[in-house]
Formats: sequence, C-alpha cells, structure tokens
Amino acid sequence: MNKELSTVLPVAPTRGRLRPLGLDEVRITGGFWAARRHVNATVSLDHCRDWMERVGWTGNFRAAVEGRIQHDRRGREFADSDVYKLLEAMSWETGGDVDPALTEAIAAAQEPDGYLNTAYGRPGQQPRYSDLAWGHELYCYGHLIQAGVAQARARGEGELTKIARRAADHVCALFDARGNQGVCGHPEIETALVELARLTGEQRYLDQAALFIDRRGRGTLGDGEFGRAYHQDDMPVRKATVLRGHAVRALYLAAGAVDVAVETGDEDLLAAVGRQWETAVARRTYLTGGMGSHHRDESFGDDFVLPPDRAYAETCAGVASVMLSWRLLLATGESRFADLAERTLFNVVATSPAEDGRSFFYSNTLHRRRRGTVPAADVQIPRAESSLRAPWFAVSCCPTNVARTLALLPGYLATTDDHGLQLHQYADAEITTGGIALRIRTDYPSDGRVSVRVARSPDHPWTLSLRVPAWAAGATAWLVDPDGGRREVTPGMAEVTRVFRPGDETVLELPVRPRWLGADPRVDAIRGTAAVQRGPLVYCAESVDLPHGHEVDAVRVDASAPPEERADGSVAVAGEISVPGDRPWPYPPYDAPPTAGDRTGIVLVPYHSWANRGPSTMRVWLPTVDSAP
Amino acid sequence: MNKELSTVLPVAPTRGRLRPLGLDEVRITGGFWAARRHVNATVSLDHCRDWMERVGWTGNFRAAVEGRIQHDRRGREFADSDVYKLLEAMSWETGGDVDPALTEAIAAAQEPDGYLNTAYGRPGQQPRYSDLAWGHELYCYGHLIQAGVAQARARGEGELTKIARRAADHVCALFDARGNQGVCGHPEIETALVELARLTGEQRYLDQAALFIDRRGRGTLGDGEFGRAYHQDDMPVRKATVLRGHAVRALYLAAGAVDVAVETGDEDLLAAVGRQWETAVARRTYLTGGMGSHHRDESFGDDFVLPPDRAYAETCAGVASVMLSWRLLLATGESRFADLAERTLFNVVATSPAEDGRSFFYSNTLHRRRRGTVPAADVQIPRAESSLRAPWFAVSCCPTNVARTLALLPGYLATTDDHGLQLHQYADAEITTGGIALRIRTDYPSDGRVSVRVARSPDHPWTLSLRVPAWAAGATAWLVDPDGGRREVTPGMAEVTRVFRPGDETVLELPVRPRWLGADPRVDAIRGTAAVQRGPLVYCAESVDLPHGHEVDAVRVDASAPPEERADGSVAVAGEISVPGDRPWPYPPYDAPPTAGDRTGIVLVPYHSWANRGPSTMRVWLPTVDSAP
Repeated sequence: MNKELSTVLPVAPTRGRLRPLGLDEVRITGGFWAARRHVNATVSLDHCRDWMERVGWTGNFRAAVEGRIQHDRRGREFADSDVYKLLEAMSWETGGDVDPALTEAIAAAQEPDGYLNTAYGRPGQQPRYSDLAWGHELYCYGHLIQAGVAQARARGEGELTKIARRAADHVCALFDARGNQGVCGHPEIETALVELARLTGEQRYLDQAALFIDRRGRGTLGDGEFGRAYHQDDMPVRKATVLRGHAVRALYLAAGAVDVAVETGDEDLLAAVGRQWETAVARRTYLTGGMGSHHRDESFGDDFVLPPDRAYAETCAGVASVMLSWRLLLATGESRFADLAERTLFNVVATSPAEDGRSFFYSNTLHRRRRGTVPAADVQIPRAESSLRAPWFAVSCCPTNVARTLALLPGYLATTDDHGLQLHQYADAEITTGGIALRIRTDYPSDGRVSVRVARSPDHPWTLSLRVPAWAAGATAWLVDPDGGRREVTPGMAEVTRVFRPGDETVLELPVRPRWLGADPRVDAIRGTAAVQRGPLVYCAESVDLPHGHEVDAVRVDASAPPEERADGSVAVAGEISVPGDRPWPYPPYDAPPTAGDRTGIVLVPYHSWANRGPSTMRVWLPTVDSAP
Repeated sequence: MNKELSTVLPVAPTRGRLRPLGLDEVRITGGFWAARRHVNATVSLDHCRDWMERVGWTGNFRAAVEGRIQHDRRGREFADSDVYKLLEAMSWETGGDVDPALTEAIAAAQEPDGYLNTAYGRPGQQPRYSDLAWGHELYCYGHLIQAGVAQARARGEGELTKIARRAADHVCALFDARGNQGVCGHPEIETALVELARLTGEQRYLDQAALFIDRRGRGTLGDGEFGRAYHQDDMPVRKATVLRGHAVRALYLAAGAVDVAVETGDEDLLAAVGRQWETAVARRTYLTGGMGSHHRDESFGDDFVLPPDRAYAETCAGVASVMLSWRLLLATGESRFADLAERTLFNVVATSPAEDGRSFFYSNTLHRRRRGTVPAADVQIPRAESSLRAPWFAVSCCPTNVARTLALLPGYLATTDDHGLQLHQYADAEITTGGIALRIRTDYPSDGRVSVRVARSPDHPWTLSLRVPAWAAGATAWLVDPDGGRREVTPGMAEVTRVFRPGDETVLELPVRPRWLGADPRVDAIRGTAAVQRGPLVYCAESVDLPHGHEVDAVRVDASAPPEERADGSVAVAGEISVPGDRPWPYPPYDAPPTAGDRTGIVLVPYHSWANRGPSTMRVWLPTVDSAP
C-alpha cells in the first residue's frame, strides 16, 4: 500500500516486513484504552510533572546552570532521564508542544561540547564517564534523544531536538571506533541513536549504535555485585540464546539490536534477538507477560523460576517488552509478537496506574499475601515497597514510562505493507492512512466482536488483515466478510482481499469467554494451581470479593467446573474457602494434613483492576481442590 | 547438680532452667562433628586469617594507626567485625591463644576514649556515628566484645578483653539513658553487652543492653530502602509476634532480647521472643532450618514464602538461629529448641563449608537449577553468586561465623541442672563435669544408636536426660537403661534416674531411617513434591548421581514407594526421569501436557554434602509422579 508517510512515528524503520502508522493516522475513540489515555493526558502527565518539580529533579538543570548543583542535586544518578521521558510523553500527547521553560533550562545546562548530565562533571561532582557501569550518562542521553525525536516527529525539529543532536554528536565524537571503547551499564542509547539516524538520515548515529551493540558482552563493565549477565556484558548480543540479567536493560538492549539489525540488514543479529525473545517467552515470562522475577537485581531468573508471590515484573520491563515485540513485529510481520504485546499491555502496562492516574505499581506481583497500607498521596516511597501503587518513587522510572507508552499507544494498533493494512491490537478507533479510512467499533476486550467498516478506499484490491490472537486457540473465532460470508479463523492473520467500497464491513468474532489455564509443571510455584483468562485478560481473586474477611490464600478452586461470566465483567468459579491452623511441633510446616473447606462460589476480577478498592490480598494462580499432597 | 562452674562458656546466664557446660568439660572425640571441627581448626581458621590479610581487612588497623586509613582502607564498613569473629573462633579453639601482633594493632587503633572502628571518625572519613542505620559501628563492638569475652573465658582476661571493655565503657558513656538515644542498624551489641556483664558482674553493661532492646522499634533508623521492618525498627521487640526483616539482624536481636530477659527476670520479654521463634519456625523456616528467603534484602519473607530455588537461607542466619535456640533452651529447658538447633546445625551450618574447609556457601539454596562454575581458589567473589561455595566474599561474614560456631560446638551438646545432666546433641564425646564423667559412643547421625557410659558418678541419685528428637515422631525410639530395661520413648526428654555406678550404660536407639516428608500446601513452591529426611539429615538429588547427564529438574519421584537406605549413606527412591521439550506458541509455558518418563531408581545424598563433586544441579523437594496438573 503506497501512502504519504506520516512523520509522527515513534519507531520508523526504513525497511522491514511492515510499516508503522503515525499517531496522526490512528485515533482511539472509546473503550478500554481511550479511558486510560484520557486519564494519562489529563491527570498523569501533570502528576509526573508536579512530582518532579517537588522532588527537585527538574530543578537539577537550573541548579547546574546556577553553579549550585554539587550541593543541591536531588534524586538518583539517572533522575534526568525521567524528565526526558516525560517530555517524550508530552510530545506524543500534545503534538510536540512541550514545556518551553523546562526545555530552556535543559538547554542551558548542556555544556559547550554537548555533554549534558546534572549528576557528573561539574566541580564537586564525580568526573564525566568515570563510572560507565552505573553512571547512566549514556542511558540519559538515550531518553533525551527519544524526546528530541518525538518533538521532531510530532511537529518538526525544535529546541529539544537540537539539544538531543548536540548530545548525540558529543557521544559519536567521544565513543567512536577510535575513541572510548566503553558501553553504558544501562542500554537505551542504542535504540535512540538508531531512531535519530532514521530521523536525520545521518549514518554516524546508526554506526555508533551498531558499535555499542557490538562492543557489549566483552566484560568491560566489570563483574559488579550481580555478575556480568546483569549488564548483558557476559557474551556478545549475537551469541546469546535467551534474555538474561536486569530485565529492562536486557529488553532495551534487544530493542536496540533489532533496530540496528533492521537498518544494517544484519539477518544474523535479527535472528539472534528473535531466538532470545522466543526462549524468554517460553521459559521466563509470567502469564501476565511480566518479565524479570528477581527482586534483588530486577533480573530474569533461571528458566521456569516464575514465583507468583515474588514476581518483580517491573512495569518498565513490560513497557520495554512491548517496545521489543513491536520492533520484531515490524521486522518480521509475525503475529506472535503482537500476541505478547497485547498480553503485556492489558496485564502489565494497564495494571500499573491506578484508575485515577495518580499512583503506580512499580512491580506487578501475581500474588499478594498481606494487605498493605496504601501510601499517602504526598509521600515518595522507596522502590522496595512497590507491591503497592504509590504516587512517586525514589526510583521513579515507571510512571513516566507508562505515560509515554499510553501517549504513543495508537501507534501500536495497525501497520501497512505493499498489499494492504494490518490490525494488530483492537480498540474502538478510526484509522486514516493513504487512501484508506477505517472505522473500528468494538468493546474489546469486554466483548469479542470487532467491526471494521471502510469509510474510504482506493479503487484497487487490497488486503485487510486482522490478528486472531493466540489466546483464541482451542475456541472458535469467526470472520464475517463484507458479503456476509462467515468462516472460522485460527490464530495468526485473518485476511480479506478485495476492492473495498465505502460502507463495507468486516467483522471479527473472537471467543472472549473465561476459561481455565493449567500450569506448566516446571514452574514450581504454580504446580497444582489453575488460573482464569478471558480474552487477553488474566483474572485474579482479590480479598475484597471474598466473604467473611477471608484472605486469598484461603481459596481453593474446582477447575473441573467451567468459570462463569458475570454481567459486570467479573467471573465466578466454584471452590472452597478454608483456613488451616498452625500445626503443633514437631516441625511444622511440613507433613501437613489437607484441610477440607466449605464449598462456595468465588468471584474473580481482571488482574489489571486489582488494588483499586483499598488494601487487599490477591492471587492469580489458585490452588485446586484436588491439589493437596 | 552442683558443680564447680567452668569458665569456658560462650553463653553463661546467671539464671534459667538449664546450665551450660564449658568447652573444657565436653570433648568431641569422633564422627560427623569431630571431622568438621578438625578441618576448621587445622585449615579454615588459617584460611580466614590469610584471606583477611590478603584483602587488607586486618591491615586496616595498622593503616588507621599510621594515618593512611582514608586512602588505604579495604573492605566494607563492617570489615572489622570479621577480624573480631575470627579472634573469637581462635580463642575458643586454642584456649585464648590469639594472635598477639593483630591484637596489638587493634589496641593501637583504639582511640583514647574507647572508640574503635577503622571506617569512621578519622580525617577524610565519615564522622563517628553519623549513620547508625548502616554504619555498623555498634555491631562491630558487639563482635569485639564477644572476642574479648571468649579470651577471658578461655584463659583469663587478656589484651583483647581490655580493648573490649574500653569499647563497652565508651558505648555506655555515649548511649546511656541521658545520651545518644539511637540504636545500631545491625543488632549484635545487645547479646555481647549482656555476656560482658555476666563476665564482669558490671550492671551497667546489662543496663545498656536493655536500653538498646527497649529503644528498638521506634523508627529512629528511618525507613531506608527496605522499610522499617528490615531493621526490626517497626515495632518494639516485646510487641512483635514473628521474626521479620533482615534475618541475621532479627535473630541476633532476638538472642540479645533473651539474654536481657533472663538476666532481668523479664518474663514478658522472654515470652515475646518465644512467640516470635514459634511463629517463624511454623511459617518462615525451610526444611533445612534455613531462615530468610529473600535475596534482595536478606530478609524473612511473608508467611509460607519459602521457595526452594530462591532460598537465601544465609549461613549467618543459621548460626544466629542456633544462638537463639540455645539461649531459649537454657532459659526454658524445652527440647524443641534443641530440635531446631540440630536441624540447623546439620543442614545449614554443616552445609556451608566445603569438605576441605577452604570454601563456603554464603546462601544455602534448596534447589539449584543450573550447574555453576566453581570459583577459583584465589578469587574473592561478590555475595550475589553465593549459591556456590567460594573461598572468600566481598561481604564475608559467613566463613568466620561458621568458624566460631564449629569452635564452640562442644558447648551445645549438654547441660546440667539441679537434678542431673541433659544431652541435647549427639556426638561421640566425653563429658566431665562436677562429679560426673560420661563416655558417649555413637555414629550419629549415620546410626541411631547412642551409648552413654558412666565413667564417674557421685554416689547419690541423679537424672540422665536424653533428647528424643522431634524427627523421631511417627517411628519408634527406644531407651535401654543400665539394667537392660528397654522402653519406648517419644519426642522430648527421656530420663533415667538412679545412683549411677561407673560402667553403667544407657542406650538410646533412634529410628534413623529414610522417610518421605509431605509438603505443606501453603508453601506454594513445594506443592506436589516430597522430600526425604533420614534422622536429622535432609536429603537431596544431585545431578552427578543421575544417569545420562540429566539435570535434577528432570526427576519425578514415587513417594508411595518407601525410600531405601544404601550402605554408603545415600538413599534410593523410585521415580521417573523425563525432559519435557518446549511447546510451541500459543503462549508457552502454560497449558502444558504432562510428559511420561522412564521409570528408574534415583539416588539421593545428604544435603550438607552437595556440591563437593564439581558443578551440579540439586534439589531437595522433588515433584511426585502424580503431581502433573
């Protein structure tokens, strides 16, 4: 499908199987994501901005200019990056209209040679690049560059773009093939430099990104406290077979590697990342799409180490996973990447913000055993307590990452290629690109019916492709073409090819019904449990729905009885509630007799909605009544 | 039983139900612990000493004296404490004959007012007591005082004792009721000050310890990264109902609280700690006795959060748990405290050192999924990689803690009271106390027969009490008295009261046979598994014993067939070995079909012995053949 290329593209590969649509080409008009995007645009962006003023992270730039940074700097060494992420979010949301005063302060803090970081290099601070492993300087540039690209794409190059280019030039001058042979402990600049190369057409940015990818894995970052794999510095990117180490780092690096591979035509590198994705999804990913189980180092665990109650599943890793899957989808056209993106968007990204958009999960556990205390609205909390939504964190990467993801979400819905248009994610929306205009009407994921009506079409044949999600396997999905022809479709892409006329309606009917999922016996912590999924939504038991003040650990479910849908979107399952008492010495808690409970119905709610009704306990994988040892 | 009190006592309460024996009254003459104590005395003490020279921790004292500490200090802020722990170990092992040069260097580094710490207070260093939460200064005094007490008890007050008294006097002067109202982020000084009070009869040391116990739980340490419970500063000691937060901190604090409670006759405080112990053992303790599952903050998890593959179970927490149980046993006489101590000694403390005494586990996982790389003998490794035994760690608290525990181990075997003598732990040993001399002959825990022959006895009746371990419940234990009378005995204390004559032999026959343990269904990660225990020893599967290079995760066991003992101390069980392949999209790893495997015999070995035969995988809790979902 030829079309005038939109410029408002978060990711704009010059080649690959599919072409993205611009944010000006896709409008989400209602439903699940429209509601969340509205809260994001009207509440969360201001919330983030206010908090960063309050905790002094935006003020760092002014303090740097005024020569008092060594005394007045606030926040962690990477605090600049959150300011940049917010500016990126604002650019996508407002069409590039970002805070001029803040931009001016950032510009003023940039040094003549392009260096820009409020934590290093000034009198009384650590020297520039004195700690590549933990200093995050290149990481911060990465987010700065993404903000600059967003501004340029949204309304043409602006001040932020110029700052970003100066920083990128500085990096290329210092870290090129003859320069500093280091890499940043936290990947991010790789994907950003490729995007800047795509924006500007300047080869050296791409070359620099390729250098950073190739240099990684040679141990230059040292062993550190967590070992080389933490920084993905244990082996070259193209040799690794699975995602490992710090989850956000691993996923940003993989996204950057895909970008480099696509632009340089490096099929080996692309295949290597594809393999890593596949193994990580098969062995190291939660049912929610959450990645990275370890709290200690925020990292992937070994294969099948996926304990629900110790799921770190950082929100930022969810954002990064969607970024990676999107790049792999564009490069390959394989719908499994959109499948994982959907799972992660609905069950990680949508779970992080509270309904009011004023507090966020940093980590997304699948099982909470104790009722927590909801943090006060005006208190910044340490990352450690992140099993509760909090207004702000000492390390607050997640709120701004959610903000920019929701802002650019329309860009994830559809693509085009030479044959037509592909719908990957479903929302009530309008799409106008080239000669095609579509009206998509749906209550997805509450309802499985997706209607795609053509409003405008070229007068030659083209193909409308609709993703049939992998979760529909085992049930029946139907496609109704504009002539009323109804055929069963299976996971993958369902296609209708024809000369479309205005008014033509294609309908996809997806089997959005709750069903039990069994557990992989290799995941120890879920042996003998079952979980409910309905469409892309994972469900959970939450204590506020249990009788008599019970906690979720008292629940056992009968997975032989089918789950029943309820009008309010919740699901009822059969089961028992029983609370075993502590047994006496000798040596509890082993050799425990099973305790029979009272048969009762149990209500489950969508996982993303939990913890919006006060302190509660929650669990996704529920022990079955026949699971007693 | 009246006797001349021995002075060589690690813990010497002035009241309580039982009285400890001195290290000069108990000699371990053979078997399991004699072998380990021999390696400790002849290899591990020198190993620790050599490493601390090499990494500069002993050199810190000289650097402090020579005014170059601000440039030359090595190790973490608590490195002094490991030097003190080694000196304590040497004192118990050698009868107080500790390195005079090192002692002299420590004395020289002590400042005129008694302050002593190589990390703080000198020009170019952080000020004294500027960071009570993380600075570890009072913690270091705690270990210094324990070393000073050990020297005094082993051979009379020496230089180390004097240094310790000066430090304690300094603390009392500065932190008394009118002084600094803070507490140390890491408890340890509490138990040390009580022991110094017991040694010297000086009330103010006890008063200061009581103040530290009472001050804790008022939030003076701040929230920190991990919350107040990490430092046990979330609520007063006497109000807490369970051990929580950092495991070693929690257990040292509880030990100190018992000491204070015993000396001040504070029954409420004693009862509070007893409750905390009970709940922690019922809900937060591994089968091995290991405590503290969280890697991130080395802390107790919530109730029943005991994942085998993410068991931190720090060696030092095992040492601290034995310290606490010993104090509770002396205070109450209840054999369950000796039961837990036994479990922890055999399965945590004995597991840490390698057979050659030159490398140590820092954490004691119950399931290792990947073969690791054995660290080189000359490389200090970060704490993070502690699922492998390593020669030394950047944080190396565990090797010296094991060393001092093995050195004072004879002190844990027996006690006396007004009625007689109690045997709590079994080893081939000789005991001489007051008018009693006993010869204990046993191959425990390989064999369950314990013979206690009287070599000398007063000519009035007294009671010999032998602990029948809780693990014997469900099987039959027998006691054969000196007249040949044979009676069944149950867990608790089995007693023989009479006028003993030299040559009288009492025999305890414990049912040391392998048996299956079922899992508590509330511990998610072990649902559908079983484990083997034989006497006090927990067993495990280790990949080196599996055919065809299989890893342990391929094993499923048939827990309906009894485990069979083999001549070499290993155990054979029936089961299957099967390796499920990765399943295709959609969305592995859920909805997995069970995979049938080949029926085969599987060899299990004592847990403490694992990882002495090269890199391997290992697991304690083994999925059962009928556990597929």
